[in-house]
Amino acid sequence: MESKKKRSILERLNAGEVIIGDGGYVMQLERRGYVKAGHWTPEAAVEHPEAVRQLHREFLRAGANVLQTFTFYCSEDKLEISGNVTNITGAQINEAACNLAREVADEGDALVAGCVCMTPCYQKSHSETEVKAIFKKQMDDFLKKDIDFFIVEFVDHVEEAVWAVEVLKASRKAVGATLCISPHGDMQGVPPGECAVQLVKAGADIVGVNCHLDPLTCVRTVKLMKEGLEKAGLKAHLMIQPLGFHTPECNFGGYLSLPEFPFALETRAMTRWDMHKYAREAYDVGIRYIGGCCGFEPYHIRALAEELAAERGFLPPASEKHGLWGAALEMHTKPWVRARAHREYWENLLPASGRPKCPSMATPANDYEKQQQ
Amino acid sequence: MESKKKRSILERLNAGEVIIGDGGYVMQLERRGYVKAGHWTPEAAVEHPEAVRQLHREFLRAGANVLQTFTFYCSEDKLEISGNVTNITGAQINEAACNLAREVADEGDALVAGCVCMTPCYQKSHSETEVKAIFKKQMDDFLKKDIDFFIVEFVDHVEEAVWAVEVLKASRKAVGATLCISPHGDMQGVPPGECAVQLVKAGADIVGVNCHLDPLTCVRTVKLMKEGLEKAGLKAHLMIQPLGFHTPECNFGGYLSLPEFPFALETRAMTRWDMHKYAREAYDVGIRYIGGCCGFEPYHIRALAEELAAERGFLPPASEKHGLWGAALEMHTKPWVRARAHREYWENLLPASGRPKCPSMATPANDYEKQQQ
Amino acid sequence: MESKKKRSILERLNAGEVIIGDGGYVMQLERRGYVKAGHWTPEAAVEHPEAVRQLHREFLRAGANVLQTFTFYCSEDKLEISGNVTNITGAQINEAACNLAREVADEGDALVAGCVCMTPCYQKSHSETEVKAIFKKQMDDFLKKDIDFFIVEFVDHVEEAVWAVEVLKASRKAVGATLCISPHGDMQGVPPGECAVQLVKAGADIVGVNCHLDPLTCVRTVKLMKEGLEKAGLKAHLMIQPLGFHTPECNFGGYLSLPEFPFALETRAMTRWDMHKYAREAYDVGIRYIGGCCGFEPYHIRALAEELAAERGFLPPASEKHGLWGAALEMHTKPWVRARAHREYWENLLPASGRPKCPSMATPANDYEKQQQ
Amino acid sequence: MESKKKRSILERLNAGEVIIGDGGYVMQLERRGYVKAGHWTPEAAVEHPEAVRQLHREFLRAGANVLQTFTFYCSEDKLEISGNVTNITGAQINEAACNLAREVADEGDALVAGCVCMTPCYQKSHSETEVKAIFKKQMDDFLKKDIDFFIVEFVDHVEEAVWAVEVLKASRKAVGATLCISPHGDMQGVPPGECAVQLVKAGADIVGVNCHLDPLTCVRTVKLMKEGLEKAGLKAHLMIQPLGFHTPECNFGGYLSLPEFPFALETRAMTRWDMHKYAREAYDVGIRYIGGCCGFEPYHIRALAEELAAERGFLPPASEKHGLWGAALEMHTKPWVRARAHREYWENLLPASGRPKCPSMATPANDYEKQQQ
Repeated sequence: MESKKKRSILERLNAGEVIIGDGGYVMQLERRGYVKAGHWTPEAAVEHPEAVRQLHREFLRAGANVLQTFTFYCSEDKLEISGNVTNITGAQINEAACNLAREVADEGDALVAGCVCMTPCYQKSHSETEVKAIFKKQMDDFLKKDIDFFIVEFVDHVEEAVWAVEVLKASRKAVGATLCISPHGDMQGVPPGECAVQLVKAGADIVGVNCHLDPLTCVRTVKLMKEGLEKAGLKAHLMIQPLGFHTPECNFGGYLSLPEFPFALETRAMTRWDMHKYAREAYDVGIRYIGGCCGFEPYHIRALAEELAAERGFLPPASEKHGLWGAALEMHTKPWVRARAHREYWENLLPASGRPKCPSMATPANDYEKQQQ
Repeated sequence: MESKKKRSILERLNAGEVIIGDGGYVMQLERRGYVKAGHWTPEAAVEHPEAVRQLHREFLRAGANVLQTFTFYCSEDKLEISGNVTNITGAQINEAACNLAREVADEGDALVAGCVCMTPCYQKSHSETEVKAIFKKQMDDFLKKDIDFFIVEFVDHVEEAVWAVEVLKASRKAVGATLCISPHGDMQGVPPGECAVQLVKAGADIVGVNCHLDPLTCVRTVKLMKEGLEKAGLKAHLMIQPLGFHTPECNFGGYLSLPEFPFALETRAMTRWDMHKYAREAYDVGIRYIGGCCGFEPYHIRALAEELAAERGFLPPASEKHGLWGAALEMHTKPWVRARAHREYWENLLPASGRPKCPSMATPANDYEKQQQ
Repeated sequence: MESKKKRSILERLNAGEVIIGDGGYVMQLERRGYVKAGHWTPEAAVEHPEAVRQLHREFLRAGANVLQTFTFYCSEDKLEISGNVTNITGAQINEAACNLAREVADEGDALVAGCVCMTPCYQKSHSETEVKAIFKKQMDDFLKKDIDFFIVEFVDHVEEAVWAVEVLKASRKAVGATLCISPHGDMQGVPPGECAVQLVKAGADIVGVNCHLDPLTCVRTVKLMKEGLEKAGLKAHLMIQPLGFHTPECNFGGYLSLPEFPFALETRAMTRWDMHKYAREAYDVGIRYIGGCCGFEPYHIRALAEELAAERGFLPPASEKHGLWGAALEMHTKPWVRARAHREYWENLLPASGRPKCPSMATPANDYEKQQQ
Repeated sequence: MESKKKRSILERLNAGEVIIGDGGYVMQLERRGYVKAGHWTPEAAVEHPEAVRQLHREFLRAGANVLQTFTFYCSEDKLEISGNVTNITGAQINEAACNLAREVADEGDALVAGCVCMTPCYQKSHSETEVKAIFKKQMDDFLKKDIDFFIVEFVDHVEEAVWAVEVLKASRKAVGATLCISPHGDMQGVPPGECAVQLVKAGADIVGVNCHLDPLTCVRTVKLMKEGLEKAGLKAHLMIQPLGFHTPECNFGGYLSLPEFPFALETRAMTRWDMHKYAREAYDVGIRYIGGCCGFEPYHIRALAEELAAERGFLPPASEKHGLWGAALEMHTKPWVRARAHREYWENLLPASGRPKCPSMATPANDYEKQQQ
């Protein structure tokens, strides 16, 4: 199949279709042994392409319409700081990642999004010229390859995201932009509605949020973005790729502030049934690009596609190995497990942690800071 | 590398080495989209070999010295009942699975174990002749391929496991046998010590437990097996491959009895730090074949290998992407995350669930049954 | 001691003194067997004066500077509806309650506050004339007796509280007014700051909140009242008598909305150490009349008096039977109990519930309502 | 009413009647301001007789058939060590306590039990002569007054309890004996069944357990006692007075080992509905003297009497202020509170703690000790 013939992201969104995004690469590949927590850099695209390819395939099979290039933190300044990669350049990683995403996307009807994210340079220099040069370099790597559109993601200052959008728009490709912010706004207190307005004015075709907070919180933030755009008389598509973890305690700082980050988040992991609820709420708010970030495994993406199967008209390939709402448990040998083969059971279950000595809520680090003041 | 030259499982155990087992295939491949919960059959070995191969590689990279063939529930009678597989025979799956395990095992110094488990026939017919014929057929599939030894696993009646051992010993290969039982004994109330004695008398070289219960509970069960063998004046190596979930409420029935089985177990998932504790306790009890079952992902296996690195003299390949005890967090941008870059932090953390409306313990289904009596 | 010579409530507050209020009568006497939950009427003042007298004494001994008459829900219209009292009139109860409070108050330096609360008539008729007539009748009962000032409490519509204040001010006695509202405002959405302004304009000398929500939430509400008064250029003393239960989930509806109300609130009960924190926060916000409502037992009031002992210059009588911050545990026979004889231990303890099958947060009834919409 | 005419404890038990015991004095009077935690001595009987009298009355009103003298830790050696009491002798306290219990018991049909408990002397000297002399002295105090029978309670070495029974039997009054032990046995490992045998052989008419552990655990212990007696061919009445707190984590050490003891036990407090379940289980096991210890407030005792009302043929006086199973909520103004006016609601409620940062289970101190070994 040739990718050239695929309908573009904006054609699909303009037609009112629901786009299912992919899930989180970095955390999942950390667990699979290919990414180093703390560094979080994507050299595996060069070192272990089979591992990245396989995860792409699983997301595709789960229903993803877009595969994001595995290029997180792949700006030269970040790679240099992290010091994790030897003898591999950012350009090599970016190009290898494009190849992998393209290869797998073309095994189905998916598109490839070239992804950039926040740079250390912004924090350090706050220089528009320098930061834009970094984004330009990464864009040029992508443009050597066959990608369909861009996503600016995981940026917590809207100003930096605006700079990235301005650079990427020069490519004439569509640009999506997702901030890792809370309903309270970005790191400088710019409210979500105003963030959305700035991004759209800079040229973003799709805006929303990703990472840092749990799905229902992120839906609230995107809703605030939508309202901001409406007030400003602007239009854009909405996008969401939240955490796959419950983070009810978090405020500005997001899950970085949780004591469990990054090595004890298991107990916060969402179930597939949590994902059904999330997909429905995101859809009802008007979001049409719905995916996930850290914590989203392939089966979480499949749950999004299954919840929205009626709206989309089809199930994803991986549903051949999944009874809807637990239906395949009907053949289980134990009667009490068979009794779980229906939607009502799973929708109402309040899962126990098996950890009676653990609390249900933590005190985020920013609260600690506050207490110390 | 030729596998023929590898040292055998018994040579290694007899030399006092620690063998790290692999983790759970069925549940992990269900989440990746290749296994159907309820059926739990391993046709992916034929349908999607790349997915099985990749998971083998991740366990190898995490430190596993043994790769088990992905042949769970792959007896003809089970495949027929589950009705999930069309146009694929048990023999095809068994052979494909042997090829995959062999291929990846030979990328390192790992051995291949051909695995059989409980049969529906035992429950239905209770006929020694019929059950043994099924095991014989599966063994013959394996013997066409290049496997190093056998494992009988996931059997909850010691009688059936004894029959399997008796069949497999005819191959003259080493045989390990792990029951999915609790400290209370097997499904007919045979205590763990007596189970171990029967298995060793039948010819098992390695005995222990797998699945159904959490690591510390399984360590207790294997300890009872050890004591039983000592009292009987018998000798065997000890093996353990428990769940990667916290199951403090479970008794005989194991995690099948938990309301969360199988689609809401996330919140019970163990952290890598829980695995350090488990590896140490298992080692201290004298167990030398230490791995995992359902819920064990590659990073859990890596944690076992890291905990026992001093005893073994080396770290696994995947540790190149892991700072021991969180050390790589030292380079994080947030000071409060940097403060987590040490062992004491992670050993003492009581992770919160982020689910304040959920309980910490559930009522297992067998308790419900009891209440209804 | 003659009560006539006691310094009045306003003399004390004007002098900057901290007034410790008493705790909750209705719930505590329910547990002691003298009040019927559902009715919550105070006929025990007539039927079992020894029980009311004893609870008054315990609060006095714990440090209370004010004893409220046990006249909750003692308006004629409420007594009639509840139908709990036979052959006892409201006037009889009001008078008996005044006698009891006076008798015990004069065993120390405490004042007596005559208390009125919300009437069914307000809900039903919304008639200013009728409601005021009810308050007038109850005031007349009180004025036959020797009370020091009035408190309007447990009113959730500021309008009704204003009417009560207007009636009671005719007595020329000081009037305090506490609403049972949340930081979101009263039942008609009047914000706390505006409520305070209306009450002070009506003549209230002391304003604040009582009941319905936990201490730290109530402190927030009173702070909003304070800010409202400051903006309006008004002055009044601030007062607080919150629940002695943790209610983090509650919004407008307060603890009535919790599934545990009223017969399973035990697990939410605050410790004495929680009370230290509350007393300090209330004091720091500028509140100088600090007491409690439902859930406050004598030892909770003592904790308030102990936390503010330095500011007040003395400890309450009941502190003769209490080692500060657990000091008396030093003589315990078990070394691990002796290790608890200090402030740091109790301030940092996160008490376990011993109920692993229970959640830590409930879904309040008003959320249920919302879900059904 | 003259107490002489009352039917004795053994007449009642021999007739198959259910005896409702009273609740806990020491902890409840600590909360009311009259007992010092750490000392736990009963000088309030002399210092504040009105407080003790009132609590007796509340238990009587709640349904208690026996009032225990408030003489806990009132042996001379204990009073001396605690150093809490000045100018008041043990004899004075013992006599005052007898008077108070007698006075209130005669307001109803209750009996008075003179109570002795473990002595420091036993721990220190282990001298039968010295310990018996202490019990003899306390018995002589009681015999100057009008008591109906004796209870030996709160002893954790059966040997000391046997000595106490031997002394008290000389009075020719009936003697009950309750140990504060777990199902594992007394502090020297004597199993419950053997403890019961020793006590009955020493002359105890009624045997059982009190304090230290939660009701259902104590029921198990008494059941073991019963089985021990049956095996030995002995007969005695069974008695139980457990904690009113949930203590699922405790082993030998009981609630003293919990981090929450004694000042943060609130969240473990049982509801009245927990008490219904306890009363039923105790009754079903064959226990006919059913009461409570620390944590039992009057409404808990009432719940026992209400659960067993059919068996006993009557409700206690305090039930006039209690709708059975919440029935009086039917008149509540809020529809969702009215919906709670029935048994099914309260029996199935899993009460939330409102404390999301707290765990549901603690690590008892004896576990800590073990960890340190």
